[in-house]
Amino acid sequence: MLAEIITIGDEILIGQIVDTNSAWIAQQLNAVGIRVKQISSVSDNSQHIIDALREAKNRADIILITGGLGPTKDDITKTTLAGYFNVGMVQNEEALQNVARIFAKYNRPLLDVNIKQAEVPANCEIILNQNGTAPGMWFNHDGKIYVSMPGVPHEMMYMMEEAVIPKLKETFNLPVILHKTILTVGEGESFLAEKIADIEDALPAHIKLAYLPKLGSVRLRLSAYGENENDLQNQVDTYASQIINRVGKNVVTDKDVPIEKAILDEMEVADLTLSVAESCTGGYISHLFTQHPGSSKVFLGGAISYAYELKESMLGVKNETLWANGAVSEQTVIEMVEGALLNFKSSYAIAVTGIAGPDGGTQDKPVGTVWIAVAKQGKTVARKFIFGNKRIQNIERTAITAMGMLINLLRENS
Amino acid sequence: MLAEIITIGDEILIGQIVDTNSAWIAQQLNAVGIRVKQISSVSDNSQHIIDALREAKNRADIILITGGLGPTKDDITKTTLAGYFNVGMVQNEEALQNVARIFAKYNRPLLDVNIKQAEVPANCEIILNQNGTAPGMWFNHDGKIYVSMPGVPHEMMYMMEEAVIPKLKETFNLPVILHKTILTVGEGESFLAEKIADIEDALPAHIKLAYLPKLGSVRLRLSAYGENENDLQNQVDTYASQIINRVGKNVVTDKDVPIEKAILDEMEVADLTLSVAESCTGGYISHLFTQHPGSSKVFLGGAISYAYELKESMLGVKNETLWANGAVSEQTVIEMVEGALLNFKSSYAIAVTGIAGPDGGTQDKPVGTVWIAVAKQGKTVARKFIFGNKRIQNIERTAITAMGMLINLLRENS
Repeated sequence: MLAEIITIGDEILIGQIVDTNSAWIAQQLNAVGIRVKQISSVSDNSQHIIDALREAKNRADIILITGGLGPTKDDITKTTLAGYFNVGMVQNEEALQNVARIFAKYNRPLLDVNIKQAEVPANCEIILNQNGTAPGMWFNHDGKIYVSMPGVPHEMMYMMEEAVIPKLKETFNLPVILHKTILTVGEGESFLAEKIADIEDALPAHIKLAYLPKLGSVRLRLSAYGENENDLQNQVDTYASQIINRVGKNVVTDKDVPIEKAILDEMEVADLTLSVAESCTGGYISHLFTQHPGSSKVFLGGAISYAYELKESMLGVKNETLWANGAVSEQTVIEMVEGALLNFKSSYAIAVTGIAGPDGGTQDKPVGTVWIAVAKQGKTVARKFIFGNKRIQNIERTAITAMGMLINLLRENS
Repeated sequence: MLAEIITIGDEILIGQIVDTNSAWIAQQLNAVGIRVKQISSVSDNSQHIIDALREAKNRADIILITGGLGPTKDDITKTTLAGYFNVGMVQNEEALQNVARIFAKYNRPLLDVNIKQAEVPANCEIILNQNGTAPGMWFNHDGKIYVSMPGVPHEMMYMMEEAVIPKLKETFNLPVILHKTILTVGEGESFLAEKIADIEDALPAHIKLAYLPKLGSVRLRLSAYGENENDLQNQVDTYASQIINRVGKNVVTDKDVPIEKAILDEMEVADLTLSVAESCTGGYISHLFTQHPGSSKVFLGGAISYAYELKESMLGVKNETLWANGAVSEQTVIEMVEGALLNFKSSYAIAVTGIAGPDGGTQDKPVGTVWIAVAKQGKTVARKFIFGNKRIQNIERTAITAMGMLINLLRENS
């Protein structure tokens, strides 16, 4: 069963927003055994949308469309769909009640443009929008399923989870797709590939291995396609074990979770707590941890100490240390991490201080110079890195490197 | 001049990564007057890539391809391109030296798979990769330009900035596209649309207005297409002024920057400083500010106080307050924000505390309950919000709402 995702909106094509909807939809579809053949982003232009629909139906059985359903004049998806299916527009009573309910709730007057949101192509079943005024639409036409949803992420997500996925499961007899992902840190793609070449060569045709590198880490993803879920799971697990044994200590986890989630899970089981002291990452490390539900069991908090004074007052870094060595130095990062451990009473701590750039570099300490320390009672490890000159990348790379160091420290005794 | 972006990689189609490359590339192209007609994400499959290239060349003059150039076996873009252009593969001396240089720098043995990275289709000009081993490729074929780049973002970005954009400017006589974006907070899309309906109706055909809603904010984007940059700029500025005057106090900025950057700029000019005390947002607000170059002139730092103890020790929240009212309460958020102002010695402060979810809600304080406070010397404003039940959205919505409140406080006297 193949799907195509079409996202509509000039804002995507001018790069004003990143299309995060597609990745999320793709995950949901893959989880129920629907493969995504292509993702196409097209403009708010009727003819272009129609062309995309025509191409998509030749490639896929299910076409999921997001975007272009807002009340304003740049949104033309609905009438374009009516034209594509050669039907008229009708007012849908249920959708109208939904719009009226939402406006009543927020005590706002119902405008003409909002009433128009309840008009839909005559051949659709509507999908109620619990979080907004634009209804979703389900079309069954010429043996293909078309679904049109709003582009606002939380409106679309709710519809997918509550209506679209269940309805797709009812409509189709879906095959099984399994993925297993092994997260590694500290070695490059080609080194890993050479190390597991014979395992990869021995994979059967229905199991594929992909390498997904990202600043400082590489994911190895096994994908298996077939009919029998148990058989597939056993096969995938067997090959995954072979890879994990071969790659050894660079493996962080065999679950498809980000590195910080793997750390949280490992620390929670061991009843450990974590605090952070962030300078150049400015809250990014804390954000990575705290975006995950349940992170408060492990993550106690931390200090973001951009200013010298805050390094002193929150973390107890000595004034002499700062003035003698600078904020970006081994001595400072050690005092930061040990200050976090002491003041925040956690069992482990991370500290980072560096020059994220693009300005602020010197001859001795160029942009990209970062000191990272991790600590537990009785042991502190500090290392210096010189990353690049791009700020956002330096922030991300510092975060993932710090997490790699924390994992090493966590596993030292096991 | 029209372009199509093709991103190659199964990892995109299974939703394992979000395709951020396309948005970035689209921004670069638009800035030099190249419109992106479509973005297509396709699988690591030769036939599918060839089909996508054929469709793209019928829509666009310039086809930019990312992904599928790594050294490992799932990467087939290069040989597929050779097949598409009906040419053989040749070893490129310059690319080989680049690979050798990088491996020498990191003191790693040069593997066969790496040497193969210097092989390219015979009809291409290579684009040196300063940050990695896979060369980029530039093809001029049948009146169309094709460019193939690695999918690793920082490698691709460097190539685009240093080689591809300059080369496209040399090759084509590019038209002018101008965008102007007005960022608003606090009103919905349809309310704004109604308010400026007559201005929108009076826009000439070559100027378009789009509404881009995102949790708590709406961007109004004017796009103008033409030949004469000065004329276009004047026209766009005139219409933007009309919209700004009409929308009034909900306008945050008329620059295409995120809300936190608008705040940083406004505060820097006024020589003001900011600190934060984050509970439920866990560092996200600080991260939003600190991702911007130069943020340290305004942003001093802050506390991430997940645990009760840290609310007390870092922010001076009274133990009685916490036990009497709970962490998510008006009294606590007020003590947090005033504690931040006092302890971190900033002229303004933000504090947030809430239940981000999915767990932790109670009858009185359901998931999504958030208290936000902003303060300056002599004035504190605290408000309660009840957002939804999705953690990430609650975090984002809390951040943008807090920034909206900060803007109101900043502008109170002006």
